[in-house]
Amino acid sequence: MQITPISKAFFDQLADAASAAILPHFRTALAVENKLEDAFDPVTVADRAGEVAMRELIGATYPDHGILGEEFGNTGLDRDKVWVLDPVDGTRSFIAGIPLWGTLIGLRASGRAVQGMMAQPFTGERFYGDGVTASYTGPGGERLLRTRPCSDISQATLFTTSLRPFSDSERQAYLSVEGQAKLVRYSADCYAYCMVAAGQADLVIEAGLQPYDITALIPVIEGAGGVVTNWTGGSAADGGRVVASGDRRLHDQVLKLLAAGETASAGASGVIPTSRG
Amino acid sequence: MQITPISKAFFDQLADAASAAILPHFRTALAVENKLEDAFDPVTVADRAGEVAMRELIGATYPDHGILGEEFGNTGLDRDKVWVLDPVDGTRSFIAGIPLWGTLIGLRASGRAVQGMMAQPFTGERFYGDGVTASYTGPGGERLLRTRPCSDISQATLFTTSLRPFSDSERQAYLSVEGQAKLVRYSADCYAYCMVAAGQADLVIEAGLQPYDITALIPVIEGAGGVVTNWTGGSAADGGRVVASGDRRLHDQVLKLLAAGETASAGASGVIPTSRG
Repeated sequence: MQITPISKAFFDQLADAASAAILPHFRTALAVENKLEDAFDPVTVADRAGEVAMRELIGATYPDHGILGEEFGNTGLDRDKVWVLDPVDGTRSFIAGIPLWGTLIGLRASGRAVQGMMAQPFTGERFYGDGVTASYTGPGGERLLRTRPCSDISQATLFTTSLRPFSDSERQAYLSVEGQAKLVRYSADCYAYCMVAAGQADLVIEAGLQPYDITALIPVIEGAGGVVTNWTGGSAADGGRVVASGDRRLHDQVLKLLAAGETASAGASGVIPTSRG
Repeated sequence: MQITPISKAFFDQLADAASAAILPHFRTALAVENKLEDAFDPVTVADRAGEVAMRELIGATYPDHGILGEEFGNTGLDRDKVWVLDPVDGTRSFIAGIPLWGTLIGLRASGRAVQGMMAQPFTGERFYGDGVTASYTGPGGERLLRTRPCSDISQATLFTTSLRPFSDSERQAYLSVEGQAKLVRYSADCYAYCMVAAGQADLVIEAGLQPYDITALIPVIEGAGGVVTNWTGGSAADGGRVVASGDRRLHDQVLKLLAAGETASAGASGVIPTSRG
């Protein structure tokens, strides 16, 4: 069966619809609910309104497609084409007023992440990729996205969002890499991956991701010339432990460092080094 | 001697000049220098160009004023009016492509921080205050800034930029507060203080600040109804250890918690709890 790509224009339509639903709620008093009882996982009115808007548009245009969404569960995951939606990735940034959240719109075909967009309506930026090329539109106009060369961790700008979802051994392995990086930034969520695609940063390392946190970003990074896998080199499409790199040489090095860090952690005393924050 | 305030229009002129010098360098390949040999403290071409532009304008308009700047040292610090400039606060964000840096323009009169502006040219946002009122201009138009009520740390959204400048006892004291907060964000620099002024967050706790990191932000937070002091309740204008709160009740509680945390740290085993990142 041949895979016919969906037009980028349809991704833009979805982003427009989500933006219109979400942006009016940014930096206003919001009802914030707790989805889980013990973990603080804010879900905003905006999040739900954004997903409803995208689901309506997909249902009207591609009624035979499946949908995997953060807010309203899954339908038709067995179908060839499945949309993977996260209306507000970075809800903590959203709640704190920080414009590093984004709307993630991903498409899986035959199980692979084939097209994706990150849209940030406050800054007016969109990052789009189809695994072969990737492009940016924003205040500075339109341009192609290309990752930059970086062959060694000592030269790398590294992002992670938060160490909270990491297990102890994952945290120890991560910190063994962080300690060698040139520059480290926290709390950037989907924006971090887009900065790797834009050649502005080199590396994102995360753990505990959901499929909707990463699916849309894979075709953007790959289309810009980068690599996204899980920590052992397999597919990142199901979330979990993810490494995204702008340069394959760096990627291979980091996978080895993470594996060595976890092995060392298994034999360690249990004292966890302090993050540099 | 009566203190005649400088017009907000002049702050806007300074921000326009800095923006024109800085913004073309955002998200482009830049020569990044190391100011200190052992600490990674990036200084960009943009930083220097922005400060030159502001110094020229101040020198031409108010030749009798002093200037304390990040990049080119100090002149006339004994004068009644002293400008305190940081062209790019948040250089790490700037380098990583993240629009959370800002141009800080502060004015001291008779030793007090009396007027200040934070300008973020990529998002087109400006936060201005004179200690009595504070205002915002940005994509959503113009509005007054007001902090929000928050009387207890358990309800607080807390920002800090990085724990790296903290001493061990400061880190331990800080983490004792972080552990009680509702939501925590890292890596926001000057943007964090502006979110407190905007009523979007409640608290910023930092250590190791320079005067030019905080002077411009004091009149914004105070003008919006908040409080900025050092960790023991004294003036924050000289930098160092700073707490900024939207609500005085929260501020008083946090100063007590930090003092208790440092006392506990003095008697502790030296094992530092891991940051939640």
